[in-house]
Amino acid sequence: MGAGSWGTAFAKVLAEAGTDVTIWARRPEVARALDAEHRNPFYLPGVPLPPVRGTDDHRVALDGADLVVLAVPSQSLRANLDLWKGDIGGDATLLSLAKGIETGTLLRMSQVIAEVTGAEPGRIAVLSGPNLAHEIVERQPAATVIACTDTERAGVAQRACATGYFRPYTNTDVIGCEIGGACKNVIALACGIASGMGLGDNTAASLITRGLAEVIRLGVALGAQPVTLAGLAGVGDLVATCTSPLSRNRSFGYALGAGGTMSAAQEATNGQVAEGVKSCTSVRALAAEHGVEMPLTDAVHKVCHEGLSVSEAVGSLLGRRIKPE
Amino acid sequence: MGAGSWGTAFAKVLAEAGTDVTIWARRPEVARALDAEHRNPFYLPGVPLPPVRGTDDHRVALDGADLVVLAVPSQSLRANLDLWKGDIGGDATLLSLAKGIETGTLLRMSQVIAEVTGAEPGRIAVLSGPNLAHEIVERQPAATVIACTDTERAGVAQRACATGYFRPYTNTDVIGCEIGGACKNVIALACGIASGMGLGDNTAASLITRGLAEVIRLGVALGAQPVTLAGLAGVGDLVATCTSPLSRNRSFGYALGAGGTMSAAQEATNGQVAEGVKSCTSVRALAAEHGVEMPLTDAVHKVCHEGLSVSEAVGSLLGRRIKPE
Repeated sequence: MGAGSWGTAFAKVLAEAGTDVTIWARRPEVARALDAEHRNPFYLPGVPLPPVRGTDDHRVALDGADLVVLAVPSQSLRANLDLWKGDIGGDATLLSLAKGIETGTLLRMSQVIAEVTGAEPGRIAVLSGPNLAHEIVERQPAATVIACTDTERAGVAQRACATGYFRPYTNTDVIGCEIGGACKNVIALACGIASGMGLGDNTAASLITRGLAEVIRLGVALGAQPVTLAGLAGVGDLVATCTSPLSRNRSFGYALGAGGTMSAAQEATNGQVAEGVKSCTSVRALAAEHGVEMPLTDAVHKVCHEGLSVSEAVGSLLGRRIKPE
Repeated sequence: MGAGSWGTAFAKVLAEAGTDVTIWARRPEVARALDAEHRNPFYLPGVPLPPVRGTDDHRVALDGADLVVLAVPSQSLRANLDLWKGDIGGDATLLSLAKGIETGTLLRMSQVIAEVTGAEPGRIAVLSGPNLAHEIVERQPAATVIACTDTERAGVAQRACATGYFRPYTNTDVIGCEIGGACKNVIALACGIASGMGLGDNTAASLITRGLAEVIRLGVALGAQPVTLAGLAGVGDLVATCTSPLSRNRSFGYALGAGGTMSAAQEATNGQVAEGVKSCTSVRALAAEHGVEMPLTDAVHKVCHEGLSVSEAVGSLLGRRIKPE
């Protein structure tokens, strides 16, 4: 359910694992290209897909589906589920690829799914790990975590997507996986900002380390296991997102750090606002609600929404103003 | 004591922090350039240094020194200390920049220092963090950890090197700092190998995550605090070393992954064998002694010393053989 780059790439993984796949796309032209030509020229140009079906009718996609993969942007998950909920099978496993904290309610995606669909928590799984879509479509080896409180459901989702190049590991720590995924884009924005200012790998590594520390603090306050955040869904996803030059959040931050305005940064990333721009606000609010200090997230929020300059932000994080020598 | 690139860069930091510095260099021509021209054309070409003294006579360097910074390669620390021990002041703080586990004895550097000099553990400090030398000489902001069981001694070393751009944090977990520093080069070799084979950021992030897990296991078995290894001296140093294209261990691994032999890799890195090539063997032996599994370190050892092919090594780490599609 969702034909963006990661949704489409994961559909490719599922199909190559031998799973029968129908992709729902919001736009009819995307659905048509998926169905007739087995490609997604809008979000994964140049990538031939295995035989998948495509449709823009959610009823067609959901009809008889044992596994419903939710791959829409996190802030539109609720509205989409409201439309879809009557057509989701009563025993289907719901697997979320969406990463974020819902603005306003401050709910994790699995909580949004439970609230809207009424599904038992044991039917809801989340997938998270160092999974840059453009590498996965090249069948480069990658590992991921599928978390579900019901180990058997996690196993169902695991078997549906395990291939020679894509290795899912199961875990019961849904909270840890979701917090890692929701917070990493904010830290990637910070790393991009520092890089855009001309700062190098020592700074990036320090920001990743400080970022990890605050993500673990938030996760533990919410009931996550620290070991999950030291694993693929925490450190792994964080390092991939923060260091890949192809990460959208890093690129957006880079444009800001190089002196661009928010709208210039948006132009530099194909007109899309980076996920971390929205999630910094909800992650910060969630941290405040639980009395957790997240200075890095706070600084990113102030840059994106309160006009703090990037040099003041990075300076405060690194304990000094950054000045030319 | 030692005028390689990191020793010289750290001497620059000390001098810029207002500390009176004499650098001992093994080679007379290096000592002369440091003393007369305040530069090190052999290991930091193009970098002007503040007024430091240079000497190739260890007695001159050690005479009256309150803080003795040990910046020689880890495997030659014992032999050097044997020559120097009679000339080190009885109350001097000994600060180790050397990262590694001594071959044969499997001792950490602070243990070697204690054994050879007879200094109390409270006089011995170690420094470790995401500190790529070429960025520090540009005065890019960086943070590091100075660990010592004696908090006052750690503070002495901290004040000697704190500048606007270099921020040392004190810690009492000497073991954690040393294990992070000793193991990271092995993981950087593995990341370099994967990159040389054409694998991308998902793989690198997975290797860093698996590497961190095995470093934490070893550290905990030796008495380190996991939180140290989740901090600057663990995750921070690991991420910087594994992701910087300028890291020597990563470059050495890259040459191996791209199909080169050990000697070709050595040529590709200016004739020097990467530290990880030696330390993989001693780290592996230390892990075996404590019953700790370190599959990544084991695979690097087999590539470097037992003729395992890089594709078999990476394949075993990622759970499959890497084959062209």
